[in-house]
Amino acid sequence: MGSKVTVLGLGAMGTTLAGAFTAAGHRTTVWNRTAGRADALKERGAVEAPSAARAVAASPLVVICVTAYDAAQDVLGPLAPGLAGSTLVNLTSGSPPQARETAAWAERHGIAYLDGALMSTPSGIGDPDFLQLYSGPRAVFDQHRETLAALGHPVHLGTDPALPSVYDSALLGLLWSTLMGWLHGVALIGAEGPGGGVTATDFTDVVNHWMKSVGALMNSYASQIDAGRYPGGEFPLTLHLSMMNLLAHASELRGVEPGLPDLLQRLTSRAVGAGHGDDSYARLVEFVRKSENH
Amino acid sequence: MGSKVTVLGLGAMGTTLAGAFTAAGHRTTVWNRTAGRADALKERGAVEAPSAARAVAASPLVVICVTAYDAAQDVLGPLAPGLAGSTLVNLTSGSPPQARETAAWAERHGIAYLDGALMSTPSGIGDPDFLQLYSGPRAVFDQHRETLAALGHPVHLGTDPALPSVYDSALLGLLWSTLMGWLHGVALIGAEGPGGGVTATDFTDVVNHWMKSVGALMNSYASQIDAGRYPGGEFPLTLHLSMMNLLAHASELRGVEPGLPDLLQRLTSRAVGAGHGDDSYARLVEFVRKSENH
Repeated sequence: MGSKVTVLGLGAMGTTLAGAFTAAGHRTTVWNRTAGRADALKERGAVEAPSAARAVAASPLVVICVTAYDAAQDVLGPLAPGLAGSTLVNLTSGSPPQARETAAWAERHGIAYLDGALMSTPSGIGDPDFLQLYSGPRAVFDQHRETLAALGHPVHLGTDPALPSVYDSALLGLLWSTLMGWLHGVALIGAEGPGGGVTATDFTDVVNHWMKSVGALMNSYASQIDAGRYPGGEFPLTLHLSMMNLLAHASELRGVEPGLPDLLQRLTSRAVGAGHGDDSYARLVEFVRKSENH
Repeated sequence: MGSKVTVLGLGAMGTTLAGAFTAAGHRTTVWNRTAGRADALKERGAVEAPSAARAVAASPLVVICVTAYDAAQDVLGPLAPGLAGSTLVNLTSGSPPQARETAAWAERHGIAYLDGALMSTPSGIGDPDFLQLYSGPRAVFDQHRETLAALGHPVHLGTDPALPSVYDSALLGLLWSTLMGWLHGVALIGAEGPGGGVTATDFTDVVNHWMKSVGALMNSYASQIDAGRYPGGEFPLTLHLSMMNLLAHASELRGVEPGLPDLLQRLTSRAVGAGHGDDSYARLVEFVRKSENH
């Protein structure tokens, strides 16, 4: 049983979203500021609306995905009367203040509003493993969750419209940081074997297993941070620091870029120097938060 | 059906290893340089040998886990005749040159030798998810794999005795780097909500899902590195860099420590500046390897 959904904006991502809704059996209406972008979608069953106002009138759920919030506001401004009583899902990338401003505009006009971030490139859309992050009223999210699930795995973060934007940056930071540690390992391992006998794929096979342990530590450290207590147990910061020194030494010997071990040693030394040597790695959060930097 | 195994060294880790072998039904002989460490193990069925030589004579598989390679060499030196024809598994932490030296010593004395690293604190030993890394002759590893599986998940890395030590550093570097990105995210998210409404546990629930995408990228980038080709596709370095700038900006606004975004931007800018803007993140490996630093 398809729902009705409208997609405003047919760039690479908007087109992919509309295609995913169509593929999931939803009655999909599309519109783009410039014509000619909807031909392939029409062949797959989507309906192209002759105007943005008509597109918005066609469905109780309207998704907008354009290049920037400025462009979104240009499109949405004149549509406010037509959107009243409908749900607007904004998947345009922007900053926390932009998300809050758009949410306030929607509220003034009686439009139910969800802000969202798609944690994927277009080719990942439709894969149920890919995260989509939403904020706004929980009941609005629940009402449209099944339709949105055509795009990936929808998660409701809370009511603050800024959350998807902040999570987007935070999760990308985690991606880059993880990949940087992995690249450092690839360089360290690859420089070792005679003739570079260990491949990146060999190393990554072991990494895939190791990441379970990393994930288990992360979950246990999350509880520590929420409790504001960081018992170090068998793996205190002093032990981390001595092993970080070994990593720095091995990296130096093998000619691997020192930026990563330097950063790790610097923050950990600061925490140990401040008297937290018996605490766990989770204590470092207080040295990452500026308010408690020393 | 238990095998016979001897454990030399009853520090915190050695005691745990002996306990795990006993629990798995292996006939476990133990020895420690100073007496009185074996009482609890004896209650669980282990046999304490009156001398290191007798301990080594009791089993065809001998595991040593002491504080450092120097201490291991002190213990092993006089045991060479008794170890000839047996398998020695060295789980003492050390550097690549120390591992190679011990392997050469074993070879001179006709001792089958596996070097190993336990990627766990004592409390993780016995959990089948915890990695143990081994190197040495494949046939020797295969012969004892089932016995070693009492400790965790045994993986054979190759024949070079230095591999467990290098993997140990590389995997810890990945752990720290991943956790640093996660802490950065916790700080970024926590500083956002009104009154810090998002907990570390909330964020980590989303992270647990996100890590599937991170792992998928890692696997695909491993193939790129092994092929020496880095097609950027939908997610080229120029796009990474512009999103890193957003992370840096958000971190600055929220007062989060700038070390991590600085490092990411610095390496990525270097690669983009060298003309690799259309390539994937995996291209950065060439800027982490010193031989190709610019």
